[in-house]
Amino acid sequence: MKITHNQRIIAAAILCAMASTTALAQSGDPLPSWNEGKTKRSIVDFVARVIRARSPEFVTPAERIATFDNDGTLWAEQPLYFQFLFAADRVKAEATQHPEWKEKEPFKSLLGGDMKGALAGGERALMEIMVAGHSNMTTEEFEPVVKNWLATAKHPKTGRLYTEMVYQPMLELLAYLRANGFKTFIVSGGGVDFMRAFAEKVYGIPPEQVIGSTGKLKFELRDGKPVLIKLPALDFVDDKEGKPIAIHKYIGRRPIAAFGNSDGDLQMLQWTAAGTGARLSVYIHHTDAAREWAYDRTSHIGKLDKGLDEASVKGWTVVDMKRDWKIIHPFEKN
Amino acid sequence: MKITHNQRIIAAAILCAMASTTALAQSGDPLPSWNEGKTKRSIVDFVARVIRARSPEFVTPAERIATFDNDGTLWAEQPLYFQFLFAADRVKAEATQHPEWKEKEPFKSLLGGDMKGALAGGERALMEIMVAGHSNMTTEEFEPVVKNWLATAKHPKTGRLYTEMVYQPMLELLAYLRANGFKTFIVSGGGVDFMRAFAEKVYGIPPEQVIGSTGKLKFELRDGKPVLIKLPALDFVDDKEGKPIAIHKYIGRRPIAAFGNSDGDLQMLQWTAAGTGARLSVYIHHTDAAREWAYDRTSHIGKLDKGLDEASVKGWTVVDMKRDWKIIHPFEKN
Repeated sequence: MKITHNQRIIAAAILCAMASTTALAQSGDPLPSWNEGKTKRSIVDFVARVIRARSPEFVTPAERIATFDNDGTLWAEQPLYFQFLFAADRVKAEATQHPEWKEKEPFKSLLGGDMKGALAGGERALMEIMVAGHSNMTTEEFEPVVKNWLATAKHPKTGRLYTEMVYQPMLELLAYLRANGFKTFIVSGGGVDFMRAFAEKVYGIPPEQVIGSTGKLKFELRDGKPVLIKLPALDFVDDKEGKPIAIHKYIGRRPIAAFGNSDGDLQMLQWTAAGTGARLSVYIHHTDAAREWAYDRTSHIGKLDKGLDEASVKGWTVVDMKRDWKIIHPFEKN
Repeated sequence: MKITHNQRIIAAAILCAMASTTALAQSGDPLPSWNEGKTKRSIVDFVARVIRARSPEFVTPAERIATFDNDGTLWAEQPLYFQFLFAADRVKAEATQHPEWKEKEPFKSLLGGDMKGALAGGERALMEIMVAGHSNMTTEEFEPVVKNWLATAKHPKTGRLYTEMVYQPMLELLAYLRANGFKTFIVSGGGVDFMRAFAEKVYGIPPEQVIGSTGKLKFELRDGKPVLIKLPALDFVDDKEGKPIAIHKYIGRRPIAAFGNSDGDLQMLQWTAAGTGARLSVYIHHTDAAREWAYDRTSHIGKLDKGLDEASVKGWTVVDMKRDWKIIHPFEKN
C-alpha cells in the first residue's frame, strides 16, 4: 500500500481526534464502583488538574507516579495478613523436614493448630514464621509455590481465593490512573517475591513496579547454573520510614499521588504531600463491618491512628469504605 | 467531527500499516555507528528472533528486559571512574567545613593535589572519598550538585564534559532496543543518585530504571517537612554477585539481554545467559588505545579477565571497540 505524506497526516489527525473522543465516549464513568461525593470528586479533580495540557498544575507523564500500599489498600488484610497465612501453611508443609520445630515456639503451637498461641510471641513470633515460610529455596522455586497457594487456598471467613479479595474500586482506580498516563507502583510492607507472583495478573502492575520488603539473597553457581537463594534473614522492611526510603531507592522520583490505609503508610503520604504542585495523599478507612471489616485506631493489623489525625489536619482525602464504595470486592458484581 | 465506525477501522488500519512501513523506511540502519560484521549481526539477529510474532523464540514485550552496566559500557571510565572524580571535587569544595581532613588520609593527599597518594590506600581510600563526597545532605540538595558538576567539570584527557564521553554506538543500541519493545535498565556499581542525575537526559533511561549502589538514607521531619538524608554509610554494592541480586530485587524478571565490560558484570551476564529461550550476553572490550583506551586483564579500573575467558567458552558476543565501532563518542560525528 502506497501512502502519501498528506494521507499519513490526515490519518494521524483522525486517529488522534478519535483517541480523545473515544476516551470520553468509552469512559462514561471510569470509577463506577465509587459513589458520587467529595471523595470521588477529590480524586477525579486531582487527575483533571495534572493531565490538562494548559492547567497551571500540569504534570508531565514521566512524573505521574502513583504509589499504593497493598495489604488493606488493594486487598483485604483481616483476620491476618494473607502473606502470613501463606507462611503458616508453608511451615506446616515443611514440618517433616524440620523435626526441631515440634519443640520450638512459635512453630510448636502453629503445628498444633493453635494460631493464637503461635502469635503470643508478638511481632517476633510473626516474623519467625514469615522468615521460615519464605526461605531456603531459590527464587525460581519460590514463585510456583506462591502461585499454587494463591490458586487453591481459601480465605477463612469468605471462603474465597485470596486474589478475589481485592478491592474492586481500587482496581478501577489503578486502571483510571494508568489510562491518564500514570505509572502505578506498589510500595508495601509485604514481601516483594510474594506480591510479584500475582500483582501483574491481578492489578496490572508488572514486577519492576512492585516494591516491598526483601529478604537477603545469595548468588551461587550450582553445577555451573546460577541461582539466587532466599536466605532466612531480613534485608529491608518497607514500612513506615522505610516507604519513602524505598521510593527514593527504587523509583527515584517523588510520587504525586499515594494511597495507604495504616500508620505504616503515613511517611509515604507525608513524603508525597510535601512535593511541589498538585498532590494527592489518600487514606482508605476500613469502616464497613457488614461488607468487610471496621477497624482503625486500636487494630493489631492495619492500625490507623496517627494517620487519621494527620489526614484530618492536612485535609487529605479519606475514603470511607462504607459510604464511598458501592461494592467492595469484584465477586459482589455477580 | 463525527466519525463512523468504519472510518475508524480504516484509519486505524492505515495507521498500523504506516507504522510498520515507517519503521522500516525510517530505520535504514538503526545502528549506523556499528561496523558490519559478526558482532553487529549477533545483536540484530537476536532482536529479530525475539520480536517476530511467529518466531519460535518470540518474547512478549513485558519480558524484553535489557540491562546495561554504566562505567565502561555506556560511558568511559578512565583514568578513574567519573563519579570518583566528582567525589574528589566535592571533598575539595567541602574542605573548609572539615578541618580534620587536613591531617587525615586519604583526604590530606587529595587536598594537597596528590591523587596518587590519596589512592595509595587502595579500595578503602577510594571508598572513603566516595562516601565523604556523597553524604550529609538531603537527596534534594544532592541532585543539583551533581547536575552542576556535570554541566561544568571537564575530563582531564579530552577536555570534554563527562556526559559527552558516552558511547555513540551504545546510545544507538539503547534506542534500537527500545524501538523494538525492550525496557532498558542500568545495573551499575555506580551510585544510583549520581547516575539518575543524567541518565534520563543522556540515555533516555528514567530514574526508576536506574539501579546502582546505594548509601543508607534517613527519613526525618525538619520543621514538619519530610527529608531524606544521605548518611555516610554504604547500603548495597551493586557489583559482581550484587548485580543479579539487584536485578531480582528491583526488576523481578531475568533480563534476556545484558551488556557489561568488566569482571564486575560477569554474574549479571551469567544470570542473563542462564534463562530459557533466546539470550544475549555481551561484553564491551576496550581495545582502542588511539580513540579511547585499551585495557582488560590487568587494569585497575574495569578489569576484564575471567569474563573474557567465560565469554570465549560460552560463545558470548564480545564487542571489539576498535574493530566494531565506527566512532566512539558522539562528538566525533562533527
